[in-house]
Amino acid sequence: MIRVIAKQYVDERKMDAYLAVVKELIEKTRAMDKGCISYTLCQDIKKANIMTFIEEWESMEALNNHMQTEHFKTLGAKLSDFYEARTELNIYKEYI
Amino acid sequence: MIRVIAKQYVDERKMDAYLAVVKELIEKTRAMDKGCISYTLCQDIKKANIMTFIEEWESMEALNNHMQTEHFKTLGAKLSDFYEARTELNIYKEYI
Repeated sequence: MIRVIAKQYVDERKMDAYLAVVKELIEKTRAMDKGCISYTLCQDIKKANIMTFIEEWESMEALNNHMQTEHFKTLGAKLSDFYEARTELNIYKEYI
Repeated sequence: MIRVIAKQYVDERKMDAYLAVVKELIEKTRAMDKGCISYTLCQDIKKANIMTFIEEWESMEALNNHMQTEHFKTLGAKLSDFYEARTELNIYKEYI
């Protein structure tokens, strides 16, 4: 299993607009993208502007296909309008 | 569900020693700690010294109990001998 952690620092003034775009991305990803095991948006319990995608994919191929989809490209691009700092993205393989 | 992401920067010269301690921590946590849904060590696919715990807990209470256990306290303290940078710890609640 491949896991993705995408830690986003959202400008709190733009949170509603951010959430509207994110909801659409999540709905389409969960509905359409083969090999998507889970695709969850989480909020830091202390810092409400830290919104992190915790994702599980069957393979790198499934993840790469996701990143080539129309919804990921267009909606993903829109999301960057709402950030106040650079997103920290890590792709992991399971170790233990 | 509560999720924990603990991103560790391990000194690669100490990786074997780090893994020996981590294996014990994982075995005990999975076997003994109530409310532990999953407790997985993952490795970044590009930077092999980034080792991240991706954890799922039934509640904050279960997570807090874990952090009070003997194995977490003693083994967790040992792990810091093997780091080359500060661990980034985030505790999350699910949002979407």
